[in-house]
Amino acid sequence: MSFRPHVKTSKSTDVAALQRAAGARGVTVSTLLEAQHFHAAGIDDILYAVGMVPAKLPQALALRRQGCALKIITDSLASARAIADFGRAHDEVFEVWIEIDSDGHRSGIRPEQEALLEVGRCLHEGGMRLGGVLTHAGSSYDYDTPEALQAIAEQERAACVNAALRLRAAGLPCPVVSIGSTPTALSAASLEGVTEVRAGVYVFFDLVMHNVGVCTQDDIALSVLTTVIGHQEEKGWAIVDAGWMAMSRDRGTQKQKHDFGYGQVCDAAGTPLKDYLITGANQEHGILSLREGVDRDIVKRFPVGTQLRILPNHACATGAQFPSYQALAADGTVQNWPRLHGW
Amino acid sequence: MSFRPHVKTSKSTDVAALQRAAGARGVTVSTLLEAQHFHAAGIDDILYAVGMVPAKLPQALALRRQGCALKIITDSLASARAIADFGRAHDEVFEVWIEIDSDGHRSGIRPEQEALLEVGRCLHEGGMRLGGVLTHAGSSYDYDTPEALQAIAEQERAACVNAALRLRAAGLPCPVVSIGSTPTALSAASLEGVTEVRAGVYVFFDLVMHNVGVCTQDDIALSVLTTVIGHQEEKGWAIVDAGWMAMSRDRGTQKQKHDFGYGQVCDAAGTPLKDYLITGANQEHGILSLREGVDRDIVKRFPVGTQLRILPNHACATGAQFPSYQALAADGTVQNWPRLHGW
Repeated sequence: MSFRPHVKTSKSTDVAALQRAAGARGVTVSTLLEAQHFHAAGIDDILYAVGMVPAKLPQALALRRQGCALKIITDSLASARAIADFGRAHDEVFEVWIEIDSDGHRSGIRPEQEALLEVGRCLHEGGMRLGGVLTHAGSSYDYDTPEALQAIAEQERAACVNAALRLRAAGLPCPVVSIGSTPTALSAASLEGVTEVRAGVYVFFDLVMHNVGVCTQDDIALSVLTTVIGHQEEKGWAIVDAGWMAMSRDRGTQKQKHDFGYGQVCDAAGTPLKDYLITGANQEHGILSLREGVDRDIVKRFPVGTQLRILPNHACATGAQFPSYQALAADGTVQNWPRLHGW
Repeated sequence: MSFRPHVKTSKSTDVAALQRAAGARGVTVSTLLEAQHFHAAGIDDILYAVGMVPAKLPQALALRRQGCALKIITDSLASARAIADFGRAHDEVFEVWIEIDSDGHRSGIRPEQEALLEVGRCLHEGGMRLGGVLTHAGSSYDYDTPEALQAIAEQERAACVNAALRLRAAGLPCPVVSIGSTPTALSAASLEGVTEVRAGVYVFFDLVMHNVGVCTQDDIALSVLTTVIGHQEEKGWAIVDAGWMAMSRDRGTQKQKHDFGYGQVCDAAGTPLKDYLITGANQEHGILSLREGVDRDIVKRFPVGTQLRILPNHACATGAQFPSYQALAADGTVQNWPRLHGW
């Protein structure tokens, strides 16, 4: 069993280096610019886990010619044909994985669909390397009990394994069976038939994952440092200089069991002040208030200049608002870790 | 009457240059990094329109020492004292404007509050230059009829002018009366007593402003170019490679009269396909579907590889996801305009 983290969460080669040191094999990326970036940092085994389209094939080819063992994915005969045609025209054997739909969440071919074998044959007979199948049970984010998470993890596993078995039964190669999302990776009771697990946001965790039940607030590694810049005393508001530009507009906890607004307020050392949330956000202004009710002592409690930390709803979205991380080492020193921005 | 655009929308010196060429005098910024960036591009007259805190005064001082006619703002006696103390300690006369609350939206002192005169006296008697008053009726975004917009514009004007009159009646200087938001700037029936108007998002417009009623979809200058990467035929979905990383998580039209999901789908030339929206978004995947109902012909209508443009809910938020703009000139040529990222 190997583990291939999704580096779209951090977009940081420093974070990826720690993940590799901890045993990760290869990475998953969400854009070809990420593939270039992580390949330039010495990572060869890269899965680009967004469906390939013809216009991106020259970029994928260039990466392979530079020595990157890039894997691309497809879930349609149209794309599979385009990949095989382009590969043969350029004497390149692309490694292609077929994307499986295990929960109706987004993309992929359902394991029982005829298209699975059609795509498999098109790639294999078209001279490409049919490397395996992958799925992502994105709907696992909608659950919040161990039983439900275990059930969706099993659904994800079974769908992907069944797809692999069907391909193999049809005489097609399917060495890799790759599954994963942070909630299912942390909840699966069985990984029978699976060769690889993927997960992304586990690397930082966030309030959405806290609500799903796979981490505590103490596990959340990412926070936004902010300063109190003013008050509306009658309303019980402190105004901070972290608005949606800093936190992102992600309101992923809105429909979960605890709505954290735009983030959980902590003291500067990172200890949650559990009744205080960022309850509103403009571009560079956040409104800090009690979750419910009016704090009549807001001005004394959080004077102008007070520094606070805000835990994010969604680490991937909040991280993307910043050009770099200020990484705190165990010895208290701080390092600047750059983050990839754009496409 | 002068116009001072808020460059937080574009964060682009190329866009600001066009605004200046069209008559703008000075700019408004939302961070001190923006102030540095636009000052380095040759703009001297800069209003930093987020409440000043002590920790940022050295950065403000450095900008003034470099020749930037930086204006800073405050809405509290605590900050006013800190500014005056720091200014005197460094032999610097900061130009400070007092932020007025004209609609209960966010920050500011209400014109009738005693704090207005206290802050004014603190700055003036403390040796700073009391440059004026400013307000931003951010709640104007909540209205969508000409009558309501005109009313909130008048409320914004009256509050700011009244604050100026009170300061002047108390023997304090108040040369500038600065108001503005895109909806009010475009709706005001009277600007009596006002010396300066500010607005930001008007420079691109977006679907939120379309719903407010101050622009048409044709006026929207910003779009995200995307490609169809797959389908879920039974559901009537096309999957595109613009997810929330490209569109931002801003759902500003959710509570407006037309909910545009994550954006209005247009053909590659930018003509809206009005029944089609981005109805769901993951990090790099967008779900394109009919606003209502299932399009049985989705695969034929938008084959893999089809290029489309998506109009954003909120131009400030969508722009921030990109390192640069691809600006289309009247002659059809495309220029790369970089955008400032981070703080």
